[in-house]
Amino acid sequence: MEQKKNVVCLVDDEFEDLELWYPVYRAREEGASVVFAGPEKGRKHIGKYGVPAVADLSYEELDANRFDGLLVPGGWAPDKIRRDSRVLEFVRRMDEAGKPIGQICHAGWVLISAKILKGRKVTSTPGIRDDMENAGAEWFDEAVVIDRNLISSRRPPDLPEYAKAFCDALYERR
Amino acid sequence: MEQKKNVVCLVDDEFEDLELWYPVYRAREEGASVVFAGPEKGRKHIGKYGVPAVADLSYEELDANRFDGLLVPGGWAPDKIRRDSRVLEFVRRMDEAGKPIGQICHAGWVLISAKILKGRKVTSTPGIRDDMENAGAEWFDEAVVIDRNLISSRRPPDLPEYAKAFCDALYERR
Repeated sequence: MEQKKNVVCLVDDEFEDLELWYPVYRAREEGASVVFAGPEKGRKHIGKYGVPAVADLSYEELDANRFDGLLVPGGWAPDKIRRDSRVLEFVRRMDEAGKPIGQICHAGWVLISAKILKGRKVTSTPGIRDDMENAGAEWFDEAVVIDRNLISSRRPPDLPEYAKAFCDALYERR
Repeated sequence: MEQKKNVVCLVDDEFEDLELWYPVYRAREEGASVVFAGPEKGRKHIGKYGVPAVADLSYEELDANRFDGLLVPGGWAPDKIRRDSRVLEFVRRMDEAGKPIGQICHAGWVLISAKILKGRKVTSTPGIRDDMENAGAEWFDEAVVIDRNLISSRRPPDLPEYAKAFCDALYERR
């Protein structure tokens, strides 16, 4: 039996709807418990297209000891998410612990502000390639790039490969 | 090596965004080719929340010899989809051939109008339970109900189990 894995997905307004939801459901398929953390517990956030997601936890409750994996969605939400120091501290702790961090599209902004990208191999939407490289990352135009615990993808059509790679890392299948 | 599987997902306006997209990406993770078929090739349809999906094929091109599996999304789209005789004929042929048919939430309306539900075990949104039973189906309140080639689910939170069950049927893993 696999042990129960606890995953948290960060959320704020105007997330990319499928980039947020697809990996969440995919990790639940594996049996993981996946919760959303946002600025305020119970607040409903609406994706770029209009799909909702409700925060189960507030950022205040983020604790790297409690979670086995982290998902950061794309869309415009990362522009908001990156401004919260509690989130950035949490991202750093998850990275230091070598726990899987999945980031897709514009999610890289959050990792930039957490200052964990120096010397790391990543991808992202080409739109923020400059930001990623300026943060010290090595950028590849590939559907999925894996650098130890860091799993990154570019855009929605990469979702099938991306979510599988995140789950493989979560369950240490590679 | 698994052989390449070809899946078609029916589409029209106001599909349930995640019920349409999650199983499509999940089947693509398995290596399946998944295309959308709608009233007109190239037409963009918008989900209930606003996520788009473009028809790769028109209903005219539906051919049961060409596809190994069929996905019918929920939302309000099934109310439109069930009115097209070419779709209903295709659904019947897929069912006669014993090919996996995934249906979730309100998708059951399409199967009702294809007249394939008599004596079959199914689930759906509770909202159309009466319609399903009046069509001769036996209805269960379970996340996934499997009756031979027919895989059905109730609503978005069932998606992880639903898409896995559809893929298992597609790749004959049970």
